[in-house]
Amino acid sequence: MDTQDKLCALRRKMDEAGVNAVIIPNADPHQSEYLAEHWQTLKWLTGFSGSAGTAVVTKTNAGLWTDFRYWIQAAAQLDHFTLFRQGDTEVPSFDKWLTNSLSANDGIALDGKMVSAAQADSLKKKFAQKGIRVDTTMDLISDLWLDRPPIPRSPAFELDVAYAGETRKEKFSRIRKEIANYNADCHVMAALDDIAWTFNLRGEDIHTNPVNLAFAMIDMDKIRLFIDPAKVSPTLGAELEADGVVLFGYEAFYDTIQALDKQSKVLLDPESVSDFIYQSIGMRADIIERSNPSVMFKCLKNEVQISHIRDTAVKDGRAVVNFLHWLDTSKASKTEMSAAEQLLNFRKEQDAFIHPSFDAIMAFKAHSAICHYSAGPDTDLPLSSDAMFLTDSGGNYLTGTTDITRTVHLGTPSSQEIRDYTLVLKAHIAVATARFPTTARGYQIDAMARRHLWQQGLDFGHGTGHGVGFFLCVHEGPARLSTLPVDITLKPGMLLTNEPGLYREEQYGIRLENMVLVIKDRETQFGSFLKFENMTFCHFERNLVDKAMLNLAEITWLNDYHQVVYDRLAPGLEVPVREWLEDKTKPI
Amino acid sequence: MDTQDKLCALRRKMDEAGVNAVIIPNADPHQSEYLAEHWQTLKWLTGFSGSAGTAVVTKTNAGLWTDFRYWIQAAAQLDHFTLFRQGDTEVPSFDKWLTNSLSANDGIALDGKMVSAAQADSLKKKFAQKGIRVDTTMDLISDLWLDRPPIPRSPAFELDVAYAGETRKEKFSRIRKEIANYNADCHVMAALDDIAWTFNLRGEDIHTNPVNLAFAMIDMDKIRLFIDPAKVSPTLGAELEADGVVLFGYEAFYDTIQALDKQSKVLLDPESVSDFIYQSIGMRADIIERSNPSVMFKCLKNEVQISHIRDTAVKDGRAVVNFLHWLDTSKASKTEMSAAEQLLNFRKEQDAFIHPSFDAIMAFKAHSAICHYSAGPDTDLPLSSDAMFLTDSGGNYLTGTTDITRTVHLGTPSSQEIRDYTLVLKAHIAVATARFPTTARGYQIDAMARRHLWQQGLDFGHGTGHGVGFFLCVHEGPARLSTLPVDITLKPGMLLTNEPGLYREEQYGIRLENMVLVIKDRETQFGSFLKFENMTFCHFERNLVDKAMLNLAEITWLNDYHQVVYDRLAPGLEVPVREWLEDKTKPI
Repeated sequence: MDTQDKLCALRRKMDEAGVNAVIIPNADPHQSEYLAEHWQTLKWLTGFSGSAGTAVVTKTNAGLWTDFRYWIQAAAQLDHFTLFRQGDTEVPSFDKWLTNSLSANDGIALDGKMVSAAQADSLKKKFAQKGIRVDTTMDLISDLWLDRPPIPRSPAFELDVAYAGETRKEKFSRIRKEIANYNADCHVMAALDDIAWTFNLRGEDIHTNPVNLAFAMIDMDKIRLFIDPAKVSPTLGAELEADGVVLFGYEAFYDTIQALDKQSKVLLDPESVSDFIYQSIGMRADIIERSNPSVMFKCLKNEVQISHIRDTAVKDGRAVVNFLHWLDTSKASKTEMSAAEQLLNFRKEQDAFIHPSFDAIMAFKAHSAICHYSAGPDTDLPLSSDAMFLTDSGGNYLTGTTDITRTVHLGTPSSQEIRDYTLVLKAHIAVATARFPTTARGYQIDAMARRHLWQQGLDFGHGTGHGVGFFLCVHEGPARLSTLPVDITLKPGMLLTNEPGLYREEQYGIRLENMVLVIKDRETQFGSFLKFENMTFCHFERNLVDKAMLNLAEITWLNDYHQVVYDRLAPGLEVPVREWLEDKTKPI
Repeated sequence: MDTQDKLCALRRKMDEAGVNAVIIPNADPHQSEYLAEHWQTLKWLTGFSGSAGTAVVTKTNAGLWTDFRYWIQAAAQLDHFTLFRQGDTEVPSFDKWLTNSLSANDGIALDGKMVSAAQADSLKKKFAQKGIRVDTTMDLISDLWLDRPPIPRSPAFELDVAYAGETRKEKFSRIRKEIANYNADCHVMAALDDIAWTFNLRGEDIHTNPVNLAFAMIDMDKIRLFIDPAKVSPTLGAELEADGVVLFGYEAFYDTIQALDKQSKVLLDPESVSDFIYQSIGMRADIIERSNPSVMFKCLKNEVQISHIRDTAVKDGRAVVNFLHWLDTSKASKTEMSAAEQLLNFRKEQDAFIHPSFDAIMAFKAHSAICHYSAGPDTDLPLSSDAMFLTDSGGNYLTGTTDITRTVHLGTPSSQEIRDYTLVLKAHIAVATARFPTTARGYQIDAMARRHLWQQGLDFGHGTGHGVGFFLCVHEGPARLSTLPVDITLKPGMLLTNEPGLYREEQYGIRLENMVLVIKDRETQFGSFLKFENMTFCHFERNLVDKAMLNLAEITWLNDYHQVVYDRLAPGLEVPVREWLEDKTKPI
């Protein structure tokens, strides 16, 4: 079937179902950021392969909404779908567009398993204002998608407590305390990273995210894990059972929630369970809406994890320094794609490396101005020596997850490139050196970074930082450093990125990213203060720094950091790389 | 009656009413910040005269909750009430304390006219969790308070369009557009400053806030103003009538909302109308919950207002400079209270001055560490020459409202005082020089100021800035510069204060406050940028500045600002003051 055929078939389905439109989000039943192929419905239907988007099909129109990161890619990939550049002030949101396209009493189909309860609720309310109903009980796609890839069945494996730092039984106990705190008697979990963390399990069901497809229910006297039995070895099954976990099949979850005790009080997060789950439970039990307790537990890394993260920073730093040395000195012909392979090879040399934490961004020249550029055979640029090169990558190790971005110039930088790089470095240092009370939230740290750019009429379109998992997802909530008024205070043990940037369209982009851990600073009569510890070791580019633009504290920070980078990494580097790094980390 | 008698009488009332507790907020039927004496119930009952607090009386206990600004004052004023230091981590909030004190099926009385609908709703939900009911239909105080001051009846007067910059008919028209936008057909207003702005009326019903006690209802074909007829002269009445305003008595408002058309769709803000109003309307009509349209209109000053504000800055600056000159040079014996009188006299010399915009803070030595210190006969300190002195004051002129704080040293400052003053000045300059995109919110600007203190383990307990009215309330929403995640973008025309501080308990406090107007900066390829224009002209203290702690941009800003201060103010100053100011504004 080509796109045209798929649209015809879908519209026949819509007629049969008696609806006037269908909304197809890019989602799975767990509200995951990255999707197994089985749930890449949007790509199957529209041809668009970006990681964020929503398709809307009416009887006469078909549109795809995606944000600025994917406008260029979507324009190239779409044929029978109109591209709506989401975020452009001229462009209506898909719900506004659909409200205008439909009439009162029209119906919209939206698969309730593929949308969070919170989002479905918000959409239903918006459409109800015009008398348009949203039916979340219909899946119009599965019957049409004949060659659909199967649900992944990679084996699950245990993350040893030597890495996790806490047994699953201890975690169950902490979660049960929260369940009791909220006067609930059961907690339903659908978020895959929350389940992975809680059960100390990892898997390979989703590309680069080491999770297992599963659901979980934690009662005061029972722990149920819903997972394809083929994934669980007899040994692992026995270990889980010994810890009080009862295993059920993945699909059995839906039967279970439809047979809940009517007296149940279920703690769940409408942002992280699907509308289908929420409605099924809500029909029988009382719902207590709260963030999953595991979200806050998971983001606060324990001492065992922190110790591993510190070691991982050294390993990962060596891999990246080896790569940057190769980039600078190897005579081999290189392209964006071959560079990604080379860096992966350097990471594979490191102890306990499992796989990348996301597909590396290797972006040369104008590609570096595209925040989420992904090199493919059609775009792969040879790395000649006259422009900026941005490399954003990370590894998933048993000992932690990494995320690092460096920007280098492969030839001689212009004065504008040096000025821009130095401004981004000043923003980076503003975060690295920040001290803040225990009441501080991420948006305050973000503002400190951004000020250096704003003062010059510059800005960047992404947050200054996101949470990072531990051998888990590279994007992890709930804390972030961004412009948004997210009311989460920063707490010791949170692992975040520090990655301000600057992107000049069609020219070049700069992003400088380290991971930072929130740690205690000091107590004063004004309260308890916190600061960041660097959890990434890799030099910055001295030839892109204008020393005159830095103040004394910034110069000191950079020279001190470079000394630490050299001291930590040098012992494990080959002599030529070590000598090269010594030069790169000389004081400015 | 003494406090003991009042408590006995109140508890008898509670018994008669069948409730186990009563909550007495510090509020009036308009959710005003400052209260006419008629509504100073909290003070009458407890003896505490601070501007913020809540009393709770049960059959066996009586407590008063107030925030850190008033802990010292409350401790001195209370006898039969236990002081709960609200904000202290050890101290439960009044609702938590009350939840623990009461049992299921107990009842609480809370006068629904004295609490916003939003707050009442939140309290009802909290208490309902334990099965405690809140009855908002009872006023247990009025019958007991025999010598209660009457409701004020000061005359209303028109603020000429030459000051307001927009006729009331134009304002009605803009508000009606918003009513239509929200598919409502009526808008109910209870906030006194919103009513004053909308009708171009001012009054003297509340000390320092030039408003009239009134309610308003704006329909598509009718404008109703509910105000004591004694306040409205025949001439003013005729003018209002000519603009389509129908006048009703103040109390007639309650009858009117209880006789609303059942088809009505009423736009109102549950944060700004009382629970009584909300419930009365909600029983009959559909409520559309939105912020009052006048809130956003009012905060964006128009060109006529801005021109007046610029002139007012010069007048008010001269008054404050005259005062600081007197403080520095007069041989007369001075106290905190006599200083307030002296400053008021200098303001009275200025054209179109009406009254102070709030009771001036004149705080010497350790008093200056108390954010909201108010000198009284018992505390009035003579101003000897060996310590810091903080003066925070403002004027209400027909041409605008002002708010300014300066801190000076009456003798020779210590190195710690100089260091602290310079840090606060750096925070002040960070705001004054900020440039930011049109998407920026106040919390980002606040963070830029606060960073200078946080880096040193210091902080201050109030926001960096608040909105200011135009010949109206000195505290005006919705924008603010604070740590709170308030999602209001800064827009050209917003008038705010810039007032970072630092308070060393028992020693001294520093606050440096100017008013700033949001104005356009420039357009770049990264978007539209904004900045601040200073709307206060008065020098800072050169002898409290450590030049070595300032960077070049900060030094330049200070010297440039001082030059502007001198240039603007000098022409209207007496020769000795002018010469004194010339010295005070010399470049550092």
